Amino acid sequence: MRSAPWLWLALVALDAVAIPAQPPTLADLASGKLEVVDLSYPLNAQNAYWPAENYRPFQLDTIATLENNGVLSKAFASPEHLGTHLDAPNHFVAGKPGVDRLPPESLFGPGVVIDVAGKASADPDFRLTAEHVKLWEQQHGPVPAGAIVLLHTGWGRFWNHADRYQGRDAGGRLHFPGYAADAAEYLTKERKVRGLGIDTLSVDYGQSRDFEVHKVLGHAERFGLENVAHLDKLPTRGFYVFVAPMKIETGSGGPTRIFAILDESDRN
Amino acid sequence: MRSAPWLWLALVALDAVAIPAQPPTLADLASGKLEVVDLSYPLNAQNAYWPAENYRPFQLDTIATLENNGVLSKAFASPEHLGTHLDAPNHFVAGKPGVDRLPPESLFGPGVVIDVAGKASADPDFRLTAEHVKLWEQQHGPVPAGAIVLLHTGWGRFWNHADRYQGRDAGGRLHFPGYAADAAEYLTKERKVRGLGIDTLSVDYGQSRDFEVHKVLGHAERFGLENVAHLDKLPTRGFYVFVAPMKIETGSGGPTRIFAILDESDRN
Repeated sequence: MRSAPWLWLALVALDAVAIPAQPPTLADLASGKLEVVDLSYPLNAQNAYWPAENYRPFQLDTIATLENNGVLSKAFASPEHLGTHLDAPNHFVAGKPGVDRLPPESLFGPGVVIDVAGKASADPDFRLTAEHVKLWEQQHGPVPAGAIVLLHTGWGRFWNHADRYQGRDAGGRLHFPGYAADAAEYLTKERKVRGLGIDTLSVDYGQSRDFEVHKVLGHAERFGLENVAHLDKLPTRGFYVFVAPMKIETGSGGPTRIFAILDESDRN
Repeated sequence: MRSAPWLWLALVALDAVAIPAQPPTLADLASGKLEVVDLSYPLNAQNAYWPAENYRPFQLDTIATLENNGVLSKAFASPEHLGTHLDAPNHFVAGKPGVDRLPPESLFGPGVVIDVAGKASADPDFRLTAEHVKLWEQQHGPVPAGAIVLLHTGWGRFWNHADRYQGRDAGGRLHFPGYAADAAEYLTKERKVRGLGIDTLSVDYGQSRDFEVHKVLGHAERFGLENVAHLDKLPTRGFYVFVAPMKIETGSGGPTRIFAILDESDRN
């Protein structure tokens, strides 16, 4: 049975005036209506960390128990740069703000995921260049101003296998993907992002000797986010990121809760 | 000069159809348009803490410097319940969730401030009862479902004077205000709040022996927030609270970033 042309036209007209999904409000979030994705791993003694001198695993000791003391209470010790964490501008650049001095407004931004899991699977030394970002933008639109960019390399699947996650070769050098310096330059200067995140140990790739990406971020007073969890659960765009680092006075970084709030009104 | 009645009527009509302030969206927050108040104190060795056995001050050690290592990096150690922090349900009740198991959606809620600074100034052993909360509601409207309630006692002004903040008397007992158990019962059961915060060392008052408020919260699987900063900077209502505790696996609590986002559209 063929539909009458007027019916088709009426449906097109109806679609044009349909009420669009409303942009999510803080009230929607506060009332539990929005999906929140926790991008932080739990902190424990098995967490992979950068194999630097003086780094020790996360340590947790019970200092009081319900049975003996009527209360459960623990104490912890950790390097700042362990687990899901933030790198502050002072981590690599003298005179720049510590983790306690990041403006609160800079901790909230629109999120985008750049997915390079395929490329990184083929080449563990893969680096995302400015050219890659521009190609991504041709497909997905410009990275929004103030964005928090998350590079999905697929390394999250190795998180519970610390050796594989570090990718250490026979010579002791590390292999995992990262950002190239020109991508960090482009994103901080041209796109004015608030920060760059990744699902590996470092925003610089494992083979880096000079930590150029860290330095670009530090000079620009932007933050890095490392060991970001569950990037496979996020869409390419259409979400917001909230970044909440431990407020360590003068800290060069610290364990950080990161949440993505999904925006169903912004899906293609 | 007298205005013509029709002009007055026209102005009244105009006011009635004036576009109301829009409820703030996540896009407003992400673009930096909203005022964010950081309710967390910086963590340092001077932070006041609960004077329990085995508690040690916050400790921060530099493990690498820009001069010697090309990178600034530190390591820290702390009790879970120090500085601005969260108490998880397992802190006082066996079998309840630890800080890593709080549902992410429970960490966002509408905020209200109950101001008892005047009463607490006159009586440092003051406790907020259910009756006080009901009187507050007569004046300010019901505490919204899912709220994060912040009790402003004025103790924040003593934060940098640890002895005064603890309020220890000649016999070694502590004096500072808190919630009464019936207020915690009313707020968790009748108002279904997500958590109770305070600008002192404990949601229970200093003289408490049995930590009833902690236990009410634990049984209800709600959280407590202690040493919450800057409550004097918040309105009574018209803001949202985001709570981001360190994700310590099996932790009974931990240092927490807390942010208030002001909602200018919700002011009377």
